[in-house]
This record gives sequence, structure tokens and C-alpha cells, in this order.
Amino acid sequence: MSANPEQRPSRVSGANGASTRPYPRSRKIYVQGSRADIRVPMREILLDDTITGSGAERNQPLTVYDTSGPYTDPEVEIDLRAGLPDLRGAWLDERGDSERLPAPSSDYGRRRAADPDLDPLRFPRYNRNPRRALPGRNVTQMHYARKGVITHEMEFVALRENLRLELYREQLATQQRGESWGAAIPERITPEFVRDEVARGRAVIPANINHPELEPMIIGRNFLVKINGNLGSSALASSIEEEVAKMTWGIRWGSDTIMDLSTGRNIHETREWIIRNSPVPIGTVPIYQALEKVGGRAEELSWELFRDTLIEQAEQGVDYFTIHAGLLLRHIPLTAKRVTGIVSRGGSIMAKWCLAHHRENFLYTHFEEICEIMKAYDVTFSLGDGLRPGCIADANDAAQFGELEVLGELTRVAWKHDVQTIIEGPGHVPMQMIRENMEKQLECCGEAPFYTLGPLTTDIAPGYDHITSAIGAAMIGWYGCAMLCYVTPKEHLGLPNRDDVKEGIIAYKIAAHAADLAKGHPGAQIRDDAMSRARFEFRWEDQFTIGLDPDRAREYHDETLPQDAHKTAHFCSMCGPAFCSMKITREVRDYARRRGLSEQEALRRGMEEKAVEFVNQGGDLYRKV
Amino acid sequence: MSANPEQRPSRVSGANGASTRPYPRSRKIYVQGSRADIRVPMREILLDDTITGSGAERNQPLTVYDTSGPYTDPEVEIDLRAGLPDLRGAWLDERGDSERLPAPSSDYGRRRAADPDLDPLRFPRYNRNPRRALPGRNVTQMHYARKGVITHEMEFVALRENLRLELYREQLATQQRGESWGAAIPERITPEFVRDEVARGRAVIPANINHPELEPMIIGRNFLVKINGNLGSSALASSIEEEVAKMTWGIRWGSDTIMDLSTGRNIHETREWIIRNSPVPIGTVPIYQALEKVGGRAEELSWELFRDTLIEQAEQGVDYFTIHAGLLLRHIPLTAKRVTGIVSRGGSIMAKWCLAHHRENFLYTHFEEICEIMKAYDVTFSLGDGLRPGCIADANDAAQFGELEVLGELTRVAWKHDVQTIIEGPGHVPMQMIRENMEKQLECCGEAPFYTLGPLTTDIAPGYDHITSAIGAAMIGWYGCAMLCYVTPKEHLGLPNRDDVKEGIIAYKIAAHAADLAKGHPGAQIRDDAMSRARFEFRWEDQFTIGLDPDRAREYHDETLPQDAHKTAHFCSMCGPAFCSMKITREVRDYARRRGLSEQEALRRGMEEKAVEFVNQGGDLYRKV
Repeated sequence: MSANPEQRPSRVSGANGASTRPYPRSRKIYVQGSRADIRVPMREILLDDTITGSGAERNQPLTVYDTSGPYTDPEVEIDLRAGLPDLRGAWLDERGDSERLPAPSSDYGRRRAADPDLDPLRFPRYNRNPRRALPGRNVTQMHYARKGVITHEMEFVALRENLRLELYREQLATQQRGESWGAAIPERITPEFVRDEVARGRAVIPANINHPELEPMIIGRNFLVKINGNLGSSALASSIEEEVAKMTWGIRWGSDTIMDLSTGRNIHETREWIIRNSPVPIGTVPIYQALEKVGGRAEELSWELFRDTLIEQAEQGVDYFTIHAGLLLRHIPLTAKRVTGIVSRGGSIMAKWCLAHHRENFLYTHFEEICEIMKAYDVTFSLGDGLRPGCIADANDAAQFGELEVLGELTRVAWKHDVQTIIEGPGHVPMQMIRENMEKQLECCGEAPFYTLGPLTTDIAPGYDHITSAIGAAMIGWYGCAMLCYVTPKEHLGLPNRDDVKEGIIAYKIAAHAADLAKGHPGAQIRDDAMSRARFEFRWEDQFTIGLDPDRAREYHDETLPQDAHKTAHFCSMCGPAFCSMKITREVRDYARRRGLSEQEALRRGMEEKAVEFVNQGGDLYRKV
Repeated sequence: MSANPEQRPSRVSGANGASTRPYPRSRKIYVQGSRADIRVPMREILLDDTITGSGAERNQPLTVYDTSGPYTDPEVEIDLRAGLPDLRGAWLDERGDSERLPAPSSDYGRRRAADPDLDPLRFPRYNRNPRRALPGRNVTQMHYARKGVITHEMEFVALRENLRLELYREQLATQQRGESWGAAIPERITPEFVRDEVARGRAVIPANINHPELEPMIIGRNFLVKINGNLGSSALASSIEEEVAKMTWGIRWGSDTIMDLSTGRNIHETREWIIRNSPVPIGTVPIYQALEKVGGRAEELSWELFRDTLIEQAEQGVDYFTIHAGLLLRHIPLTAKRVTGIVSRGGSIMAKWCLAHHRENFLYTHFEEICEIMKAYDVTFSLGDGLRPGCIADANDAAQFGELEVLGELTRVAWKHDVQTIIEGPGHVPMQMIRENMEKQLECCGEAPFYTLGPLTTDIAPGYDHITSAIGAAMIGWYGCAMLCYVTPKEHLGLPNRDDVKEGIIAYKIAAHAADLAKGHPGAQIRDDAMSRARFEFRWEDQFTIGLDPDRAREYHDETLPQDAHKTAHFCSMCGPAFCSMKITREVRDYARRRGLSEQEALRRGMEEKAVEFVNQGGDLYRKV
């Protein structure tokens, strides 16, 4: 036995430690569904009181969406070797349409399971037998939805999307109006609405029946905009523990799904560790692993090998697969005049295979067989854009839109099988050409959810592509894109480290939230307003915790005003104690309150009186603290 | 004499050293105008050859806009104590419509000049007498333009905006089409076009006759989008040298103008050092200094004091003044219901003054007198938005738009005096409400250039407001905003340091460039295409130098692939040597070239043959380097 037992993760240690702290000044809460085992996790941010002339007023806690899973719940004991609790097992059992297999049904899965050399690397619960639909049955959420069934997953995501809006009714009345570009977001998300959207194909709930640890979530343009973060060991493999840590780190900062793009020797085992410990959907690009299996020689790929890889991964619990089935032989010449040719790795692999064999893409010719696999495990399609533009010059060209039309055709095939489907999109697109992408995608693909990489709005800022792309991501999110695949500052330059991953995720949380605000998603603005009120009232601790990154906000604040006293001082660190622009409005309001007037009346009627008072109170106004 | 002689900057040292390196692999060039002293600086980026099967092909150098002034010209000896060369002195002399005053004409300027204690702080050339229009003359660029005169400044900016596009004619034909939202950007900027835009009020050339060191630039929506960076010592004053270093640092990264928002004891002397060494326009908010002069007590401000401050700063050479003249008594009650009230510092000062005296804003009541001062020195108005929204909830409200209407009224007054005018804008605005800002501004203010702070598209990301706002800035730039005031990551939290300033500037260069691309500014895409070709050809050094931040791009690249050999290797650091998605298209092209076919023909006709070749060449394709 040559393997090193050190590679197996410990209980919770090292790199994962940072992701298992509870969020500051926050409480993990669970919204109870219609039965005991539907418990929807949320984060409740506790706020300081507002101090007024007449005493302290309590501020209602703020409820925010929580992707971090049990890791931030101090009540849950985390043991990476045991994996997360089996949240959905009972739901799946009750449906009675799937069975436990005696062993993995992929050749590769069986070989790996039988190899004793891998024991030290292997997830301890690995002997859990995979689940598969009974012959002739279809276990996709879309299939249930189309039969009119509301699954537990649908109820779960309905509660999750609602964010307890019933608690914030007063504030909701004051929100800015959105512009939804044809989306139709209801004031309250009901399980029925979720079902109808999934049935219609306008939303997906990626939830492989072999990933029962999953906290269900939904992707669709009538729901909150989601983001994806990537992780992946490369040839110079990081340890399994590090890979799991990248996942827990990503979801701590808000990644709604994680794509595992690992390459290297032990990706099968690494993936098992990640899925068993992941509360969010895991996506992969199976062609990457298939390519590994043929030593990196694209021309040696075959449908049989690919099929085995799909089954291998489906039985581990991968929730969505990127499949580059839309890239056809006839598209390849269209890329010849491009400035950067084919930049998608999957697209490039398939193009190479097509050219080497002078045959049509086997993912296209075997697409219905792929659908059969997808529906036996409820794996969601993420139809890959192998011809996405790699630079501004190539945006929206014939190759890109030619492939998009084929993706639309494939979406209809997938839907015929009730297989959930999302569509991947670009890439590099200048701002004025972003909307056309969204409109064409909706039109070609029957409103299947769009999932874009950025897009980057300029090519000239390597080192800052999280920003060039957050601009495009926010815009396309507003126009209707359902999920945004993050880009890190290392894009085009190298492999992201932990800090880069966080930078990328925060940039994309900003883009997604800006899009939710712009679309007028009910409740999105509640968090902004909570922040703004905390600013106006100089509740510094609240400003830190309401923000997307409490740690950085505090650190930046403390650089200028390190003393703890300042955190509750009634001035901000920009203008300093002698003068602050937010104070004057507070004065006006206090005045109105003392006089028992409405604020507007106070100002209109009492202006003269106020002038005198202002002068008299001069000392007060500029009091040094 | 108590002052410390150490505060006076040395030749070039310490903090300024970093900004006086030439740009890597670049050449400072000067485009010659119609006379010897019109020399327009640009940066020429030298590119590596493209290596093809048939040998090396030379790549034309890339010309980019250069805000860095003489600091990056190795031929110029920089001496901060001497200031920059007097670029425009002869032009001003020739016009014969201004005179040298025997002494500063502001009381404050005279007092400071006469105080021997300040000698050690004072800029050595300080005894240079200020220049002022002769009685009855008007020296604004707008005044000349309206008389049909093309000034040297206009010729200078026309050459500057054109970026030697005549050298890139071939590439220009392939650019993406923009969507200009009513802007009318010509294919070639001529001096006549500049004159007409300035005459029309649609563009400004901020160029105080007391700032002859200035390299003229233009702000208007038919020109390249500009950005502003702020600097400012606070009460805990940094040294003069540090302040000058902030300016040279800012322009190195691309700041088109610098606003000096300093407070503290020696701001008069600090400002002199900055202006004498600045090749870009300097803006200030004079009410800040006025407030200092009355010990921070807003109610003690007066028109006389303010007027003296305007003259003091105009005679030092400040190029544009933010003046909060649009905030009127009647607007103040409209802010009472806001979530964050008044957040503009200048707005808040004036609101306080109005309330304290129950009188109308003296900046409004004395506006025509201010115009008289502006036209005697050619200081440009930046009409301040004292009521800009401080949060998403307050965006586009009655207070904001009420003030904007008054700014429109004031623009017409300024134009009556031929005073150049830009309009400041928000602030915090969700994406769907940004366009209304731009449209209303164009309508209210007769198309005077808009100059916005961001806008921030969400409130929930303190520590990342350079990103929340770059999104809004890119969008409003596209819609027609002429200049974007940067926001640093420290916004809402503390004072930016050197790194924050750079982060803010790069984020805003991205926003401005993304906007230029989207508007279809001729030539904007040339830099993107140069980058993309360098990517496709794996010219790593070129990728670094073409980017907005060569230092960071190199650093990030080297983290993953530190060896120097890799910088010219034909694979990127993402996919590694074994596989790279950009290689396949190169193969297709080489094949076509060898066969003497067009690339598309090669693919159509030779597909079968190609299949064979692909397999045969397999070894080559995956050759390890």
C-alpha cells in the first residue's frame, strides 16, 4: 500500500477550520416546512438598537439567504469523515421509484471501489450503494412537476426563496420598483409556483438522488439570481482536505453551487469527499475526466468511455453535468476567422475529436441516450457553450449563435425526457451586446435558465477580470440570467488561491444582488435598507455584519479608526468627529419628533424657529467626541 | 521659524519614486501639432513578433492614452521643487487678454504669501505672479469656441483623443458596432469638432490660465470617458511630499483629473505643490477650505469669505470648482423622509448654513458673481449634487431631481457668461434607475457633461464599493456620462491608502473603457484586440504590458508558473502544457496557410484530409514543452 493516510481529511481541521466558524453576530435558524424533516436554513443577523432621544428602539433581525450549510451551525458537530446528514433520504425512499444498486454500475466506479490501494484515500462511507430509478421510472424534479406533484424539494426552495418576507411587510411597501425584462417574479414564492416553473422548464432544482446531503435550491429567472464558484485540483494536486476546504470556503462566502473541475489521478475519490460534505449542488464537466482516462488524447475519446464516466459520476451524486453537445462539425469553420478561436476547454476537446474523426460530435449523436442516464438519477443538464467568445472581437458571432440554436434543439429533446436543463453562455461580450445574448437565449431555448461566465466587458484588465466580468454579470443577471459563474482575479493568468476565490465570489454576490434589486425581486432591498439605516445611525457593528464580508469591512474601518470606542461613535471615519454629513438630517428629525410634527411639516412650518435653534445648538452640533 | 524643512519635497524621492519609472516595454512619444510647442504625449507599447511557420511577423506598436505626464518620460528630468515645464505659457501670452498681477488678489493668498513662517513649506516658484483676464475680457475655452477660435488647447485634445487612429485603419474595419444612446462620436476627432462641442457646452477643457503645466484634456460624451481620482490629507496631515506622491501615483494608473479634497492647516501650500507638479486638471471643493477658515462652523460661512477662497484657489491654478449652488431651502424638507438624508459633505454644509440663517443658499444668490470669477481665470464649474442619494432607497427622489433642475437653471446662467460647466451626479442608484439619471441630466442641463460618483448599485458590500460602483459607472458611462469619479474599496469605512487608490483607479479605468467600447468610440477596441491576439499567440510579455496593470498581471502569472521559460511557452497557465484550448484554432490556420487556401475553404474542402492529418500529428499537438 503506497497511499498516504495523511491525505484523508480529519474531523475538522486546518483549511476547513475557517469555514466552520458561525457568522458574526448571527444566528442559524431553520424555517419549518409542512413536516418535521423540511427545515430550511437561513441566517438571522442580529442588529443593535437604534438610540433615539426617547430611548432605545429594537431593530428586527435581518434574515438573509444562507448557502453555508451546517458548517455555520454551532449546534451541528461537523465530521468530514462522516459527511453531512442525510437530509433527503427519507423523501427519496417514500417516493418508491428508485432502488439501491448492489454496486456501482459503471466499470470505472467498480474498479476504483475494488482497488485496495485506494482505501486510505477513500471516503469511509463509500460503501453506501448508489441509488437509481427503477426501470422505466423517471425521478427528475421536472417529471414530478409535470405530473402536478409538489416535491419536498419544491416546498423547501419555496420557503428558502421567500426569506421570511412576511416579517418585513412594512419595509416591503417602500422598495424601489424593478424592471423585470419579461420575468414574472411573484410577491410570494409558493410551492405551486415552484412546481409550475420547473414543469415549464423555466427553473431547475439540481438534486441528484445520490446527493441526499443537499439543501435544495432553485435556478431560474423568476427567483433570486444564483452564483457558481469553481474548484479543482490540478496535476500538481492539492490534498483531498484542501479540495474539501475550497468547497466549504466557497459556500461560506455565498456560492450557490460548486463546480468541481479537478483533474489528476484521484479525482474520483476527491469528488466523493466533496459531494458527501457539500450542502450545495455540485456540477462537473465529465469530458474532463473522460479525457484523463485516455491520457489526454482527445481523438481516443469514445461514447462508451464517456457513457461510463457519466454513470460513474451520476452514481456519486453529481447534480449537474456540463455537456458540450451543441458544438457541431459545421460550426468549426466558423471559428477560423476568430481572433481567439475556441476558448472553451470542453469545446476544444470536442472540436479536436470531430476533426480527428471527421464525424459528428458523439455527445450530439448520443444525446437521447444521455437523457436516459440523466433521468435515472435526476442529473440536470448544463448544456455547454463550447463556442463561447474568448474576446470582445468574437462576441455574438455566427459560431456562438449557431451553437446556441443547437442548444435550443437539445433543450427540447431533454424536455421531451423531462430532464432538467440549463444553458451555458459567454464569455467575453461588450456591454451593448449583452442583451442580445439574453434575448436570443430565451428565444432559442424556450426560456430554459441561462448560466453565463461573466461576461467580461473588456479584455484589457488581466488581474482584474472579477471586475470586468462582474459588470457584465450584473447586467445579464438583470436581463434575466439565472446563474452567474464567477471569475476570479487570476482569470487568464493562473490558478486561483483561497483569497482569489473569495474575491471572485464576493464580486459575484454583488452582481447577483444588484441584479435582484434591479429586477425588483421582492425583499432584495431589505438588506440594503438595513445597511443604510445602520449607516445613518452610525451602528458600525451592524454595518460590518450586514455586509457581504464582515471581516474585511471591520479590518478596513479599523485601519483608520482603530479604537473600539469609535465603532459606536456618531460620526464616520471619512469625515471625522468634527464634521459629518449624516448628522444634519438626524437633527431635523429629532426636532420634528420633539415638536410632534410630521417631518415635512416641521421643516415647512418651523423653518424660522429652526434657524434660531440651529444657531443656539451650534455647540451641540459640532461637539467633539 | 518653527516649520520643518523636511516637509518640502526633494528632487524625486521616496513615495514619488514609484511613479517616475517609465512604463514597461513602452515608449513615451509625442504627436506633433501645427506648431513646435504643441506636442501631445502618448504611450506606445512595443509588442513581440508573431511567430508563424514562415518566420516572425512584426506587430505594430499599440498607442494608448497617457495621463502620466512627464514623469514616465526618461528624457525629462523631474524636479518637484521646480515643478513641471510651462507648457501653455506662450499660448496664454500670445492671446494677450490676460495680465500678470503684482500679487495675489485674495486676502488669504496675500496673508499666506507674506508669512515668513511658511517659507520652508512654500513651493520655491511661489513668487510667480498670478494671471487674470484683463478687465472686461473672458478667457474661457468656451468663450473662444463661441467666437469660432480654435485654441491650442483644442488642437491638443483633438490629437490626444485620436490616438493616432490613422495607423490602425485595417483593424478599425473589424470593430464591433457600438450603441451610442444619442451621443455622436465622429470617426476622427478634429479641432473643429472640439471647438463646436465646447461652444455648444457639450464638452469642457478644464484649463485654468494659472495652470500652464497642464496637458489639456477634454470631458464630454462624444469623447473618451474620463475618470477622476481623489486625494486629500486629513487633519492627521500627511506630508506635502506624500500628497504630491498621491497625485503622481494616481495619474500613473490613469486618473484623468485629480480632485484635491485636503483639509488641515497647510492646504494652501500643499495645493500649490500639487498644481505646479500636475499635468492633469486639478479640481477642488472650495467650501471645504472656507469651512476650515471659520473653524468648522458652517453657520459662520459668508459670501465674502467664500469669494476670497475662490479667488485664492483660482489664482493658484485650480481647474475646476465643485460648487453646491443648486441646493435650495425648499429642497431640505424633501430629505426628511430619506433613509440616509444628506450625504454630500458640501450639500450638508450648505443645508446647515441655510437652516441656521433661514436664508437662501449664498452660492445660489451670488451665482452670477461666481461666474465673473470663473471667467477671469477659466475655472470650470462642476455643479455639485448636494442632495445626491446616499443609498438605494433614496435614489432618484424628489430632492435629488429637484436639485438637478436647479443645476440646469444654473448651467444656463453659466453659459450666458461662457463659463464651462459640468454637472455632478449620484451616488447610490440601482441598475434599473441609472438611465433615468442620465436622461434627466441631459434634458435638464442642456447636455452639459455629466460627472457621477459611481453610482453604487447596491449598499450591501462595504469593502468592495469600487466594484458595486464600477458596475454603475460602466453603465452610466455607456449611457453618456462623460467623467466617472472613482470610489475606493475603503468607501464608507475609512481613508484610502496607496493600494486602495490604485484599486479604485483600475476599477474605473475598466468601467470607462467598457463604456468606450459599448458606445463604439473609434479605436477603443484596438487595445482589446491587441490583448486578445497576444493571448491567442501566447505572447505573455505582451499580455502583461497591454493590460491596465502590468505589474499585477505578471505577479499573478508568476505565482502559478514562476519560471521565465513559461512566459513564452505556447500554453497558458490555466490548462497547463498537456492541453490548451487555444491551440486547435492555430492548427486549423496553419493548415490553411500551408495549402494556400482561405481558412474557411480549408476547413470545408479539406475536412477529410484534415482528419487523417490530425491523427498523424497527434504527437505534435500534445508535445510537452
